Amino acid sequence: MVFIQSGLTTFIIASLILVATGGAAVHFSARLGFLLTSCLWLTACLLGALPLYFSQLPLSFAQAVFESVSGVTSTGATMLVGLDTLPRGILLWRSLLCWIGGVGFIALALLILPSLRIGGIKLFHMESSDRSEKVLPRIHQVANAIIIAYVSLTVICALCYFTGGMSLFDAINHAMSTVATAGFSTHDASLGFFKGNTTILFVAAIFMIFSALPFVVYIKALLPRRRQRFFDPQIKLFITLIVGCSFILGVWLHFSRSIPFHQALPNATFHFVSVITTTGYAIEDYSLWGPFAFGIFFLASFMGGCSGSTSGGMKISRLIILWYLIIANLTKFLSPNAVIKIRYGNSEVSAEIAQRVLLFLCLYMISTIIGTVLLITAGLDFISAFTGALAALSNVGIAFGNTISPVDNFSTINDTALWILNFLMLTGRLEIMTIFILFTPVFWRR
Amino acid sequence: MVFIQSGLTTFIIASLILVATGGAAVHFSARLGFLLTSCLWLTACLLGALPLYFSQLPLSFAQAVFESVSGVTSTGATMLVGLDTLPRGILLWRSLLCWIGGVGFIALALLILPSLRIGGIKLFHMESSDRSEKVLPRIHQVANAIIIAYVSLTVICALCYFTGGMSLFDAINHAMSTVATAGFSTHDASLGFFKGNTTILFVAAIFMIFSALPFVVYIKALLPRRRQRFFDPQIKLFITLIVGCSFILGVWLHFSRSIPFHQALPNATFHFVSVITTTGYAIEDYSLWGPFAFGIFFLASFMGGCSGSTSGGMKISRLIILWYLIIANLTKFLSPNAVIKIRYGNSEVSAEIAQRVLLFLCLYMISTIIGTVLLITAGLDFISAFTGALAALSNVGIAFGNTISPVDNFSTINDTALWILNFLMLTGRLEIMTIFILFTPVFWRR
Repeated sequence: MVFIQSGLTTFIIASLILVATGGAAVHFSARLGFLLTSCLWLTACLLGALPLYFSQLPLSFAQAVFESVSGVTSTGATMLVGLDTLPRGILLWRSLLCWIGGVGFIALALLILPSLRIGGIKLFHMESSDRSEKVLPRIHQVANAIIIAYVSLTVICALCYFTGGMSLFDAINHAMSTVATAGFSTHDASLGFFKGNTTILFVAAIFMIFSALPFVVYIKALLPRRRQRFFDPQIKLFITLIVGCSFILGVWLHFSRSIPFHQALPNATFHFVSVITTTGYAIEDYSLWGPFAFGIFFLASFMGGCSGSTSGGMKISRLIILWYLIIANLTKFLSPNAVIKIRYGNSEVSAEIAQRVLLFLCLYMISTIIGTVLLITAGLDFISAFTGALAALSNVGIAFGNTISPVDNFSTINDTALWILNFLMLTGRLEIMTIFILFTPVFWRR
Repeated sequence: MVFIQSGLTTFIIASLILVATGGAAVHFSARLGFLLTSCLWLTACLLGALPLYFSQLPLSFAQAVFESVSGVTSTGATMLVGLDTLPRGILLWRSLLCWIGGVGFIALALLILPSLRIGGIKLFHMESSDRSEKVLPRIHQVANAIIIAYVSLTVICALCYFTGGMSLFDAINHAMSTVATAGFSTHDASLGFFKGNTTILFVAAIFMIFSALPFVVYIKALLPRRRQRFFDPQIKLFITLIVGCSFILGVWLHFSRSIPFHQALPNATFHFVSVITTTGYAIEDYSLWGPFAFGIFFLASFMGGCSGSTSGGMKISRLIILWYLIIANLTKFLSPNAVIKIRYGNSEVSAEIAQRVLLFLCLYMISTIIGTVLLITAGLDFISAFTGALAALSNVGIAFGNTISPVDNFSTINDTALWILNFLMLTGRLEIMTIFILFTPVFWRR
C-alpha cells in the first residue's frame, strides 16, 4: 500500500512536470546543467522519502527525508531503530536508494560534472576519455559500461556475501549498500551482526575497496580497443594508505588493548577501510579505541576514496594535487624563476585546474566549519556538531560525540539539525560547487 | 640576578654566533632569508624563556618556552598563575616579549615576507609601496616609520590607560600587550580586574582595533609626499564585521540572558574585538554565552585582523580574495569563455597570488586539523585540542574546552602538548610556509 501511494504521488508529479515542460526544446547551457543536476538529486531525495513517510514508522517528515537523503547520497547514516524487525519492503527500499544514488553519482562524476567543469574533476575525465586516442567514443557507451560494471560488482558482491553465510535477502541488501559505499544495513548492529564471521567481514572490506576505486578502471576493462597503459596515482596512494594505516592501527590495538595481533589487524583494517571509503559500517564502537586511533579515523574521514567512485570526502586525487602544489610553491619560493609543471598521471595540471582543486578544498573546510557552527546553534554539543558536519559532508555517516557515535544513530537529533545535515550531505555529494552556484545572484540573472 | 644570568647566557651565545659567522660575506638568497627568519624567531623565543626558567617560578623548561613563545608570537596564552603577586621584572619581561614580537611581526610582514613572496602578502606590499609613485622610497625609511608608529601607538595607549585609572606599571604593561594584540595581563583576572571601569575597557577595545588595522595606514601618514587616495578593502570589511557582529551578539546577550542592552552591547563588543583582533583579553567566561555566541567567536578566531598588523589568524584580506575567487569561479562555470580579472583594492590579483592565497588557507586548515589530532594524541579532549590548536595557530590564545577556557589558562597542560602548541604558535606567526619550507628536502639540497 505504502509503495502504491508513493508510486502514485511520484507519477502525478512526473506527469505535471511532463505537462509543464512538454514541447519546448531548450538550448542546453551550463546553467541548465547545474539546475537539472541539483533538481534531479533533490527530487530523488524527496520522492525517496515518501514510502518512509507514508509507512507505519514513527518518522517526522524531516526524519524521513534525512533517511532518504542519507541513502541517495550514499552516506548511510540512519534514523531508524529496530532495523531487524522492520518490514522487508522498507529495508529493500533503503538499500535501493543508496544503490541508485551510487550509480547516479558515478554517472555524475564521469559524464556530467566534467562538462560543467566542477572541482577539477575534468582532469580525470580527460584522462579517462583521452580523446585523441578515441578510447571512449560515445557517451552512451560509457554510460552502458558504468551500468554493466556497477551491476556486475553488486551481483558478485551479493554472491560472495551469500556464500559467506548471509541470508539471500541480507546478501542483496548489503551488496547494494557496500557497492554504493553507503553503509546501510538490515541490522541495528550493522555488520556487527556477523561479528564472528570473518569471511563476510573480509568480503565487505574487499568490496568497499573495489567500490572506492575509480570506476574508469572497470570501464577501461569493458570497452573495446583499450590501451594497456593506465596509470592513476590515486590508486597507488589509496592502497598504500589502507595497508599502512591498517597496520599501524593494528599494532596500536595490539599494544593498547592487549588484543592478539592476528585479531587486531583484521579488526583495524575493516574499520579503517570502512571510514576511508566513506562507507561507515561498524562492528564495534571504535571511538573508544583511544586518542591515537581517533586521530587517524578523523583524518581518514576527510580524505575519502578515489575520484570517480561512489565514495565521498575530499578524494585522494585532490590531496595528491594539493601535495604537488605545496611542493611546487615551496620550490618556487626558493628559486622564483623556476617554471614548474605539475603532472597528475599522464596529464598536466593547469593553473586553472589547480585553482579549482584548491578552491574546492577551501570550500570543503569552510562548509565543515559553517556546518559545525549551525549544528551547535541547533543544540548539538561541539564534538557531535563538528564530526557530524564532517560525516555528512564526506558522506561517511559516522560521527563521534555524545549524541552520535559509531554504534549510536541519528534518531535522537532534532529536526532543525537534521535539515542542516540533509543540506550538508547533498552539498558534499554534488561536489559543493553545484549547490553553491545556485545561491549566487549571477546564476539567476537574465 | 635572573636577568644578569639570562643576559650573560645570551651574550655568550651571541658571541659564539658572531665568531662562527664572522668575516664571511654571504650572498643573500631566498633560502637564507627563510632560514634567518625562522632562526631569529626561534632564538628570540628560546632566549626569552631564560629569565622565566632561571627565576623562582615553578616552571618546567617546556612551560617557560611556552610562555616565551606565547609572548613573542603575541598569542598571549599564559602558563602562570598568581600574576598579581609575581615580581614586576617578570611581568614587564612578558610584556616586553610580546611588544617586541609585535613590531617584529609587522617588520616581517611588510619588509621581509614580501620579498620571500609568502602567502600572497606581496599584494599589500606592492600596494603599500606603489613603486611607480615612489611613495616609500627606501627600506630603512619604512622601518623607521614602523617603529615610530608602533612606539607612538604604545605611548598613547599607555597614557589613555593611565588616565583611565590604571597604575603606571599596569598601564605600560597593558599598553605593550594591547598594541601587540597579545593579551598578556598583569592580573590573573586579565582585564576583568578592571571590570567596573568602562573607560579602560573602551580604551582597550579602541586600541585593539587600531593595532589590528594594517600598519601601512600609519606609515603613509608619517611619510612625506603621500598621496591622498588610499584604499584597502580589508579595513572596510573589518570595521563592518566588528560593528555587525558586536551588535548581533549584544542583541543575543540581551535576550538570552536578560541583560540590559546598554550593558550587553559594550560587553559583546569588547569580547568580539578581543577575539577577532586575536588579542585574547577576557572579562568573563564568554564560552558560557551559549551555542550561537560560541559559533560567532569560533568563526572570528579563524578570521583574524588585517594583513600587515600585529594580529594573527587567516587575515581578512585573504578571505576577501577567497570570496572574489569563489565568485569568479562560479561565474566561469556559467560562462566558460569569460575572462574575469580579480582586483583587490587598486591592484590586480594574479593567478599566482590567487594560488598562494588558496594554498595558504588550505595549509591553515590542514595545520589546524593535524594540530588537533596531535593534541588529542597528547591527551587533550577533542574540544580543547581543536580550539587549542586553532587558538595557537591564530595567535589568539583563548580556547574553549574542559582543560582550556577563556578564564582558565594553560598551566594544567602536559609538556608534550605544550611543545605542539609552541610549534603551532610559531607556524601561525611565520605565516605557515616559512616553517613548512624548512621541512622540504629541496630546501636542504646542494
